[in-house]
Amino acid sequence: MTGAQTSREFPIPEHMKAWVLGDPGELALKQKPVPTPGRAEVLVRIDAVAICATDLEVIAYGTPAMIQGGLPFNKNFTPGHEYMGTVVALGPGVDEVSIGQRVAVEIHAGCGQCKRCREGMYTACLNYGLNYGDRDKGHRANGFTTDGGFCEYQINNINTLVAVPDGVSDEEACLIVTAGTAMYGLTELGGLVAGESVAVLGPGPIGLLGVAVAKALGAAPVILTGTRDNRLEIGRELGADHLINIRKENAVETVRRLTGGRGLDYVLECSGAPDAVNDAARMLSRGGKLCLAAFPHEPVLVDVAHLVRNNIYVYGIRGEGRSATHRAAALIAQKRFDARKIHTHTFALEDLPTALKYARERIEDAIKVVVKTRTGAAQRLAAE
Amino acid sequence: MTGAQTSREFPIPEHMKAWVLGDPGELALKQKPVPTPGRAEVLVRIDAVAICATDLEVIAYGTPAMIQGGLPFNKNFTPGHEYMGTVVALGPGVDEVSIGQRVAVEIHAGCGQCKRCREGMYTACLNYGLNYGDRDKGHRANGFTTDGGFCEYQINNINTLVAVPDGVSDEEACLIVTAGTAMYGLTELGGLVAGESVAVLGPGPIGLLGVAVAKALGAAPVILTGTRDNRLEIGRELGADHLINIRKENAVETVRRLTGGRGLDYVLECSGAPDAVNDAARMLSRGGKLCLAAFPHEPVLVDVAHLVRNNIYVYGIRGEGRSATHRAAALIAQKRFDARKIHTHTFALEDLPTALKYARERIEDAIKVVVKTRTGAAQRLAAE
Amino acid sequence: MTGAQTSREFPIPEHMKAWVLGDPGELALKQKPVPTPGRAEVLVRIDAVAICATDLEVIAYGTPAMIQGGLPFNKNFTPGHEYMGTVVALGPGVDEVSIGQRVAVEIHAGCGQCKRCREGMYTACLNYGLNYGDRDKGHRANGFTTDGGFCEYQINNINTLVAVPDGVSDEEACLIVTAGTAMYGLTELGGLVAGESVAVLGPGPIGLLGVAVAKALGAAPVILTGTRDNRLEIGRELGADHLINIRKENAVETVRRLTGGRGLDYVLECSGAPDAVNDAARMLSRGGKLCLAAFPHEPVLVDVAHLVRNNIYVYGIRGEGRSATHRAAALIAQKRFDARKIHTHTFALEDLPTALKYARERIEDAIKVVVKTRTGAAQRLAAE
Amino acid sequence: MTGAQTSREFPIPEHMKAWVLGDPGELALKQKPVPTPGRAEVLVRIDAVAICATDLEVIAYGTPAMIQGGLPFNKNFTPGHEYMGTVVALGPGVDEVSIGQRVAVEIHAGCGQCKRCREGMYTACLNYGLNYGDRDKGHRANGFTTDGGFCEYQINNINTLVAVPDGVSDEEACLIVTAGTAMYGLTELGGLVAGESVAVLGPGPIGLLGVAVAKALGAAPVILTGTRDNRLEIGRELGADHLINIRKENAVETVRRLTGGRGLDYVLECSGAPDAVNDAARMLSRGGKLCLAAFPHEPVLVDVAHLVRNNIYVYGIRGEGRSATHRAAALIAQKRFDARKIHTHTFALEDLPTALKYARERIEDAIKVVVKTRTGAAQRLAAE
Repeated sequence: MTGAQTSREFPIPEHMKAWVLGDPGELALKQKPVPTPGRAEVLVRIDAVAICATDLEVIAYGTPAMIQGGLPFNKNFTPGHEYMGTVVALGPGVDEVSIGQRVAVEIHAGCGQCKRCREGMYTACLNYGLNYGDRDKGHRANGFTTDGGFCEYQINNINTLVAVPDGVSDEEACLIVTAGTAMYGLTELGGLVAGESVAVLGPGPIGLLGVAVAKALGAAPVILTGTRDNRLEIGRELGADHLINIRKENAVETVRRLTGGRGLDYVLECSGAPDAVNDAARMLSRGGKLCLAAFPHEPVLVDVAHLVRNNIYVYGIRGEGRSATHRAAALIAQKRFDARKIHTHTFALEDLPTALKYARERIEDAIKVVVKTRTGAAQRLAAE
Repeated sequence: MTGAQTSREFPIPEHMKAWVLGDPGELALKQKPVPTPGRAEVLVRIDAVAICATDLEVIAYGTPAMIQGGLPFNKNFTPGHEYMGTVVALGPGVDEVSIGQRVAVEIHAGCGQCKRCREGMYTACLNYGLNYGDRDKGHRANGFTTDGGFCEYQINNINTLVAVPDGVSDEEACLIVTAGTAMYGLTELGGLVAGESVAVLGPGPIGLLGVAVAKALGAAPVILTGTRDNRLEIGRELGADHLINIRKENAVETVRRLTGGRGLDYVLECSGAPDAVNDAARMLSRGGKLCLAAFPHEPVLVDVAHLVRNNIYVYGIRGEGRSATHRAAALIAQKRFDARKIHTHTFALEDLPTALKYARERIEDAIKVVVKTRTGAAQRLAAE
Repeated sequence: MTGAQTSREFPIPEHMKAWVLGDPGELALKQKPVPTPGRAEVLVRIDAVAICATDLEVIAYGTPAMIQGGLPFNKNFTPGHEYMGTVVALGPGVDEVSIGQRVAVEIHAGCGQCKRCREGMYTACLNYGLNYGDRDKGHRANGFTTDGGFCEYQINNINTLVAVPDGVSDEEACLIVTAGTAMYGLTELGGLVAGESVAVLGPGPIGLLGVAVAKALGAAPVILTGTRDNRLEIGRELGADHLINIRKENAVETVRRLTGGRGLDYVLECSGAPDAVNDAARMLSRGGKLCLAAFPHEPVLVDVAHLVRNNIYVYGIRGEGRSATHRAAALIAQKRFDARKIHTHTFALEDLPTALKYARERIEDAIKVVVKTRTGAAQRLAAE
Repeated sequence: MTGAQTSREFPIPEHMKAWVLGDPGELALKQKPVPTPGRAEVLVRIDAVAICATDLEVIAYGTPAMIQGGLPFNKNFTPGHEYMGTVVALGPGVDEVSIGQRVAVEIHAGCGQCKRCREGMYTACLNYGLNYGDRDKGHRANGFTTDGGFCEYQINNINTLVAVPDGVSDEEACLIVTAGTAMYGLTELGGLVAGESVAVLGPGPIGLLGVAVAKALGAAPVILTGTRDNRLEIGRELGADHLINIRKENAVETVRRLTGGRGLDYVLECSGAPDAVNDAARMLSRGGKLCLAAFPHEPVLVDVAHLVRNNIYVYGIRGEGRSATHRAAALIAQKRFDARKIHTHTFALEDLPTALKYARERIEDAIKVVVKTRTGAAQRLAAE
């Protein structure tokens, strides 16, 4: 740990267990050196890491930067990005956090030196994906452009750290960033949603926490659409005023009826369904706004004329920009909603393949599946 | 003119000539009563009116509010919205303008009492189209929801008036609102375009003035794409640094080459081409912004994933909101660009059908065709 | 009620009781005609009206527009602006609200035709105060530029109406607009206050509800400063994390200690104390923001250099702009805070002089003193 | 130059001439080692450096961070911050600029890791002044917190580099940052100033370029106030529509007359006069905005009530944030105004004391005094 500040209380091994990619779809548990934090970085001992749908894609197809750059599949890469843990070493000069502090981590630490970073839009960093090979300037995106969290230790830029509030479990702390993405979406939609009507499309993790954050900020009504009643019911527990099962009713018609024909102020689209943009546009009132936090993989037919004629603005977002994670963490600290409602399963790090299978196949109605690095270790020890 | 303030200098007849719709596509020149301005309104003697592509649609298919409302075709309706003229009567209490003043007029006077108007988004007024029949609350949109400018006199809300700068001809004054639409687009894209890279897609009137306004605000480089070299050349005269004839080269590739592979900050889409959204998105850098001022009439395939992955924001606009017309008029007053370059033909009011034909069929490379109500009258008198 | 829509359920008398100004400081209970609502207006039967510090000033010195315009004292004027009631008649074309609906009312209905109104800044309407005499264009400000609420009926522009949520009493409904002013301040400070540090200076009604709104939006910590412990304690009940009695400790030092030396993100100044701007500036971090919702009547020494060197922005606000009242009402509807904690006394309309005395002299620790028009009538009847 | 990329074309000596501070007011020309650029940094060979009023203060009293931190006077410190030059070495990984490129430099490179930097407000960096001693995290501010430009070579973060447009002389290039400060002020005032009324108070360098930038962006009218007619006349050449010599007329009255009694949209205060805030506030219309780019050193009486009653917002700025320098450079590249009009004198680096005397005492009506490092060297050689 040359140059880093450490503490006896948290001894750091030279090597750690880390899942690494082989060929597409292949993961193996190997030994990797524990990395050393540099300037403005800390070493985080990973305590828990949640599985996100994009992890499944990275494992199956490679990272976006790799795919778009036409590079070979990322062998030896460690995916995983929704993690939390304990700070165990500080890079030179770091005094913003202290050793022993529990932190959740944002995915994106912009490069800090491109136009977008200078504008405060660090999740749209122009150097995203440029830190492969010997180029060292790039935007770090945990589990996308740098090694991620399916392992025991990881370095993080201090910009990405969010203090875990007291009384928040490791599992819940993994969801801070998920809530941060929802908060980022609502931020770009205007932020001032108290008393405004909001629909969230798609009751996945971001959508469900989108309901929770919108409600916590005072949105009314909050409408959630989806295909599965059990998921929708969790939305109700998190604050949705109306649930629409799109298998059973026409969501656009229902929304327009619920809003007296006028349409909504905001839609947060989290379903990625092919018709979602058109449906959302038709749910909106003139001058309404739509945030896209999900997308279909293939191009889809969009009624562009409707957007223009109705002065609708569409915000495609990725990640959790504008310091939104800090705002989300503040709401969680104040117990404004119970993010734990979307956590369904926990596995040990060694059982990552099973955890991934649960997440991918939604076994036992899995929503958020968490891998507990430490508990896993502890459990194994206990079992031996 | 009960209740209105008038002047002997500008005597007002009881009736006027006005073109009115019959069945779809049919126009007839008839007599209509000259309307009386109410509170916050003036009577404008129309001196010139330009033809916009949407006028052609209103004449052929009806007004948007009619079509969307499923109402019968607007018989007896007078279309036309890009007009200018002279204030000849003031409604009760109006002291913001004076009789004899030359004014251009914005299309939209929001209702002033809906949520969007109260937010300053009057072109997205929620009462748009609600002033048919006996409902009198609606957003007035000249030539769309109320009688327009293919006639001799029209009333206008004082909110829609823009003083015509000295030395600006009637024909040029008709283009103030066109420039205002381009300015609105650039406003919503952020407004601060000095030194930023901008592409304008489509060298129609709004696109060409979009080039002019972007350049006047300091954008660099300004790139214009289109299919006809003569139109593109006008764009060069108005300030385009680069022209791309999309029949001859791949616009996306050229733009990325011109920007060193990085992509653009802003795109103002004015072509309505089916591929425009995808092309624009691929021209943009990560975190870039796209304004849609035109649209294809049918749904088109859009690569939504590209928008989301690249944190791209899309602004569908209509009209000329955010007081943009005043900003555009200021630039014209200061001779920052010569809007007259897009004015190609002038006809008398009586010759409206010929003028429409020139505009529709782009006869003699027509761009903006203007109908001069007064000159026309004068010419006829001279000919008699 | 010519031209207005009424209902048998709510019969409207021709005359009403109304308090009117005589010489400065003199109020008399007289008969006035019940006014008739015009276009975009309704008649509100006033059920309750709270006393604001500015009412005391209007009664003692005249309205601001009168004073600034050098006009004679507003004899026969009816002050009072924090009122709520029941809609009993609709002006022509009004269908946004219905007869029998309970509403609170904002003070300001901008003229809708000046530059600021068109920008959405209707509380800064350029025609404020121009509706005296025969000029009828002006911004209506209840109890300031038009007759207010110390009477039985008043007309209101529909823009000023806020639906009173179910389960909210008349007294609490009077506080919606007070909360709206606090919300406006937080809106101009950025709006996104979750997890941000906020100090509120001065535990008057706006300050106390400023604490409540900041907390409801997730601000942390929320610090309240003042001179009286009992008021500060109410602040704690409304959500303040820290209380500072400035008679007992140095507020700037305490704030800097509470924020680890860094300073605050936002200050909402509601005290009007002479040192408040300097104190607030020193509480803020570099790049922090200060909203002034109160002011000292005399010029005060301000360390302008500190503002400039620290890139501090200062927002002087008046009223409750940007639709903030609707957001405040949404939070009250959702029971995010209990505005009733600042309501201390209720009197009948006939007892307005006593009510004013309680408010002016803070008798029995009066905070918000409410006059109940209807209950008062009922009580008197019961007593007879 | 370990780790840096250099070129034979620009050989770099080990030592350079540098002016250094002794006791307050004392400067001596000494040898210092040429610094080596690190990650995200370049080495700039300084070709010209302008003298700013704050340089005079730093030399006389010390740097702000030193004064506020209560540290001893900065002996051996090299002041100077308005410089430009030629890139002669690149730190590791830098590929944004190339060796031989001419650049002007912004003063502030935020730390990139505090809350304000992450918001894009890097001139309000919370780590400003924290890079003294062994702390290496701080915001670099050339000539304030790190060695500045009164020497031959200096390192700069790539965030601070602005390409000098072709055809712009070294002297004019020094003014890019001055224009950038004016642009930052107009940016914070809203940015969209075309057709808006603007007064600039104080015809110093920032004020004069404030006139130029406001005019280039289309502001109308642009009013300049000051005490010296010759300075005001330069303002006219740079675009002022009206000049007000405050020794000869009452500026507030004149402004209100020029605006038809309504008042201005924006004021950019660059005078630092004790009455400037009050005068500016009285020049503004209701809802107007005021940017403070200068300040009096002592607290002054401010009519805070006027700010609040008129919903006026006040923006204290320092430096040239929000990438404003790039926008200013774009306008200069496009020859929108001639910044050279404020450059009056040039001296050689060796003659810095004389240059400072000219600037301090405004000898021969000095406005911007520039020290040319290279020409100076050449001149001396020629003279030997």
